[in-house]
Amino acid sequence: MDLMSILGFILGILAVVGGAYLEHLPPTAIYAPTAFIIVMGGAGGAILVSYPPADLKRAFTEGMKLVFKTLDTDYRPLIEEIVKVATVARKEGVLAIEGMRNSIVDPKLKKALKYVIDGFEPKTVVEILDTDSFHEFEETEICGKLLEGFGGYTPTVGIIGAVLGLIHVMRNLSNPDAIGPGIAVAFVATVYGVGFANLWFMPMGTKVKRKAQILQMRNELIKVGIQGIQEGLNPHFLKEKLEVFLEHKYRSHEGEAH
Amino acid sequence: MDLMSILGFILGILAVVGGAYLEHLPPTAIYAPTAFIIVMGGAGGAILVSYPPADLKRAFTEGMKLVFKTLDTDYRPLIEEIVKVATVARKEGVLAIEGMRNSIVDPKLKKALKYVIDGFEPKTVVEILDTDSFHEFEETEICGKLLEGFGGYTPTVGIIGAVLGLIHVMRNLSNPDAIGPGIAVAFVATVYGVGFANLWFMPMGTKVKRKAQILQMRNELIKVGIQGIQEGLNPHFLKEKLEVFLEHKYRSHEGEAH
Amino acid sequence: MDLMSILGFILGILAVVGGAYLEHLPPTAIYAPTAFIIVMGGAGGAILVSYPPADLKRAFTEGMKLVFKTLDTDYRPLIEEIVKVATVARKEGVLAIEGMRNSIVDPKLKKALKYVIDGFEPKTVVEILDTDSFHEFEETEICGKLLEGFGGYTPTVGIIGAVLGLIHVMRNLSNPDAIGPGIAVAFVATVYGVGFANLWFMPMGTKVKRKAQILQMRNELIKVGIQGIQEGLNPHFLKEKLEVFLEHKYRSHEGEAH
Amino acid sequence: MDLMSILGFILGILAVVGGAYLEHLPPTAIYAPTAFIIVMGGAGGAILVSYPPADLKRAFTEGMKLVFKTLDTDYRPLIEEIVKVATVARKEGVLAIEGMRNSIVDPKLKKALKYVIDGFEPKTVVEILDTDSFHEFEETEICGKLLEGFGGYTPTVGIIGAVLGLIHVMRNLSNPDAIGPGIAVAFVATVYGVGFANLWFMPMGTKVKRKAQILQMRNELIKVGIQGIQEGLNPHFLKEKLEVFLEHKYRSHEGEAH
Amino acid sequence: MDLMSILGFILGILAVVGGAYLEHLPPTAIYAPTAFIIVMGGAGGAILVSYPPADLKRAFTEGMKLVFKTLDTDYRPLIEEIVKVATVARKEGVLAIEGMRNSIVDPKLKKALKYVIDGFEPKTVVEILDTDSFHEFEETEICGKLLEGFGGYTPTVGIIGAVLGLIHVMRNLSNPDAIGPGIAVAFVATVYGVGFANLWFMPMGTKVKRKAQILQMRNELIKVGIQGIQEGLNPHFLKEKLEVFLEHKYRSHEGEAH
Repeated sequence: MDLMSILGFILGILAVVGGAYLEHLPPTAIYAPTAFIIVMGGAGGAILVSYPPADLKRAFTEGMKLVFKTLDTDYRPLIEEIVKVATVARKEGVLAIEGMRNSIVDPKLKKALKYVIDGFEPKTVVEILDTDSFHEFEETEICGKLLEGFGGYTPTVGIIGAVLGLIHVMRNLSNPDAIGPGIAVAFVATVYGVGFANLWFMPMGTKVKRKAQILQMRNELIKVGIQGIQEGLNPHFLKEKLEVFLEHKYRSHEGEAH
Repeated sequence: MDLMSILGFILGILAVVGGAYLEHLPPTAIYAPTAFIIVMGGAGGAILVSYPPADLKRAFTEGMKLVFKTLDTDYRPLIEEIVKVATVARKEGVLAIEGMRNSIVDPKLKKALKYVIDGFEPKTVVEILDTDSFHEFEETEICGKLLEGFGGYTPTVGIIGAVLGLIHVMRNLSNPDAIGPGIAVAFVATVYGVGFANLWFMPMGTKVKRKAQILQMRNELIKVGIQGIQEGLNPHFLKEKLEVFLEHKYRSHEGEAH
Repeated sequence: MDLMSILGFILGILAVVGGAYLEHLPPTAIYAPTAFIIVMGGAGGAILVSYPPADLKRAFTEGMKLVFKTLDTDYRPLIEEIVKVATVARKEGVLAIEGMRNSIVDPKLKKALKYVIDGFEPKTVVEILDTDSFHEFEETEICGKLLEGFGGYTPTVGIIGAVLGLIHVMRNLSNPDAIGPGIAVAFVATVYGVGFANLWFMPMGTKVKRKAQILQMRNELIKVGIQGIQEGLNPHFLKEKLEVFLEHKYRSHEGEAH
Repeated sequence: MDLMSILGFILGILAVVGGAYLEHLPPTAIYAPTAFIIVMGGAGGAILVSYPPADLKRAFTEGMKLVFKTLDTDYRPLIEEIVKVATVARKEGVLAIEGMRNSIVDPKLKKALKYVIDGFEPKTVVEILDTDSFHEFEETEICGKLLEGFGGYTPTVGIIGAVLGLIHVMRNLSNPDAIGPGIAVAFVATVYGVGFANLWFMPMGTKVKRKAQILQMRNELIKVGIQGIQEGLNPHFLKEKLEVFLEHKYRSHEGEAH
Repeated sequence: MDLMSILGFILGILAVVGGAYLEHLPPTAIYAPTAFIIVMGGAGGAILVSYPPADLKRAFTEGMKLVFKTLDTDYRPLIEEIVKVATVARKEGVLAIEGMRNSIVDPKLKKALKYVIDGFEPKTVVEILDTDSFHEFEETEICGKLLEGFGGYTPTVGIIGAVLGLIHVMRNLSNPDAIGPGIAVAFVATVYGVGFANLWFMPMGTKVKRKAQILQMRNELIKVGIQGIQEGLNPHFLKEKLEVFLEHKYRSHEGEAH
């Protein structure tokens, strides 16, 4: 669970609502269902037109889930699994992997090893893993772009809402008592538009895009591992090659060289 | 039919017009033919200057059609066709494809197979398919950029319309009763400019660009298939190679590896 | 003659001036020589500082010309010429091209064939054509960026003009009758700045950049043709290879494969 | 210590606070804890949602440290070390490096040499160093993007704060004495939002991104050196190859060729 | 001397100051030392934080110099020198170049020839020239980005200055006579911020970036020349290969092929 995402949501809302409270604004002052309808309906309509149905569905299911999912970047157990397989493959040949494949924990590694066991050429395996990783990256990144896109529409639609409110005020200048409250209501649409974008949708999109990058790097690690296994690379060398994918604190000889 | 595009249009308009209604604005308040003429005429003039006639025509015919066209991303039948051809080609040689070519459903695959049957070298076929796909992508993407470009001009021209309205108001400050309604009319140009851009043109452009990407990926799938056929790749291997182009729910061994 | 560029200019001006007229603004209301001087002088000064003299000259001569020049994208006659040369070269050797070179219509093809006849190696010819095309593209694109850059400066300088006008108004608030007209004049600088940018300079820059792309694709076509001639590629194959550079409506077998 | 970072912070604050003082604003005029809470709380919440915890931690520890850390770009001692190793390796073989490895000052060079001594193939060493450098660059650059991202949220959240303040004013127009001070307080949120972004977070992000580039170039230098050592390149040639990584003032034959 | 840079500066200032004069603003109206201090101090502080000291120094010395330096793009004498060397090298061997090296006018060519004479392999020479050119380009481009960055900060800091001025006005609404002049002074900060950015810093940055491109192309020409010399390319072929780096008006056979 990526607690920061939840904490960030709460902190953002608290800051704005709490700030409004500290400025002596009653909660009703920023409660404006019409503004909410305009901003969410307008931006929602825009995003429905912007992306194909499959992307919409993916962004609001898998994309949203990814916002709150922790990605474990301690790849040491994965590297260990790869090195173990490489050791067996080097000693007993690639076919010997078959016996140990069922005990592989990582599902992506397990699937990639299937290609090796089935006798796919190294070049073909690399092509498959590259294409697969590229599509996974692209599909995940689109989810991020879609959420950012939503966050790009809410402020502009918020401006439409605000201007509609101001038009209402301008048409009724003869009633001076209604001017202030009228402008106040108009401004709420701006708060909604800018707020939803900057506290929720843009940040969620950014996080999904960043996590797409992290997942891609993990796929790259597996690919380098599979390549090493198929080339029969010395497992010790392979381990060093895979450890540069680790953050520094997880690397084994980090301190030694200094 | 990409129903989301239609639903999105309706939702966006409903949100804005309904919002105006809920704010007690009569429909006439946002009816301003002059503002419409300035925004659409100005942005229309700008886009005519921005792109060559062929691009303009393509964007408002094929581009617009693509906004509302569903792209089927279930490539399983296409992959099956390719694998069937690969099986025949491997067993009976490339020339044996000729007999089955007429029964090929996918027109792009059919055309690509013609190069194979005519005896084009693999390298040449790949170059032709790559160039063709690149141009198709570029031409489709230009349609998307053009629609987004239109959506980039309407808000700025809307500002010109609003400022012209404000100039009118400022020159007649001596008539206080005309100030409010004058400003109200001026603001409508902003609503039109921002509204057309954010509810229609920008989202349509984004969708066309996204669909250009999807079409390009489909072309890539066919290219990889044709390469496999010409190289005489094991059909089983080829199938695995093509399946990574599928969304996960369509893949055959997806569950198995886990 | 790219009539759309002229039509677009006229449409844009008509929409804005006609819109002003429909809003009952007399033409004198948007006639402000001072605002014109500030906007064009300021943006002109900025662009002189932004690009070297050679780019400035090119943008306002060749660049402007390109805005109004029709680029014929029906490359069928060019492809026919290339295939004709390829047929002769394959049958009678590369030297036989010399005799037909004078009758070549396309000047770029003619020049490229000179390298072939002079005995340049294929690799060298490709390098020369690539470098030449790259520089032509870059020089043309710079023209487009410069025009867009001009369109980037006019609105910001227009804001300077408007603020100067508002400063004048603010310093003379004691004379209420001058406020409205003063603000009106100040706003004209905004109209000029946003108008010149969005109706003229940005669109012209976009068109030049797009035409740079089209010219580059044409150079690419010639390069692929010359490569085919030097490699002695089967003219039938070469024709297919070149036809993917054509828009679909111009291709010969387009209907057949379906 | 990168003194410019500290000097820049002080200069920026001095200019704004001193400017306020010169405009006869008492310090209390720009002291508004509520505005501070809204801006920092809102932007802080947004950034927590935007990046995974590991990035957040890295940006506010290593990233911030890098803002104030001087990167020595006089690589002459490093080049000398590499050339010394290359000389030994060429004369006495790669194994002879082992004896001198402990005296190597640069920890990255020391670690890279370990791969050479352990008998890794040149291709593998290059892959390891490239991957390592790529990840280091990406991790550092993310820190810069995160800080810039923070600076992207503070002005927009500042606008929310300002609009909330204006709503408060608009709801109380009946009390004219409160209008001015109310608007004044609302504006402080804008000053905080724009100020934190432009004087602190954006500049810090830019510096981290620039330093990521400089660190990457240094890694590149080491890689070219290690390659030269493994290929047994003439140390004199290697030195020339490494000196182009130096700024001109540090190069040895700079003056000679002129 | 790039006179356009000076002319542009003068034209920009004349347009704005002259425009102010034509709008009957006395020069004192836009003279506001406090606004100047805020804008230049704030943006100066921001830029000190944004880039390492070495970049700052380079941008305000070499970068500024480049703004006013004419780059001669008539490379015909340089090409002639290269072809002369290539002719000697082809006839009498690479060592024969040594005798003529002292008479080489172009310092970069002279230095590159030193590598050839010293017996560096062609591959190594290309790597050295590429790396050298890449760093020169990057260092020059950073100067341009830094100047543009400065131009990115002045308007935003100008807004801070303006808002501070408006806060002052809002706190003293009880003194109506001070409102107008107070707002006027506040607006001057906007004029300074937008003016410095758009008339000076952004254009200077753009010019430096463009000149970085031109210098890189010149380095590329020398590299292609050196490659030709080392490969013993026919000097006639080499000349054609180098002439595509020339603007069309300088090419020798330009008219002939038409």
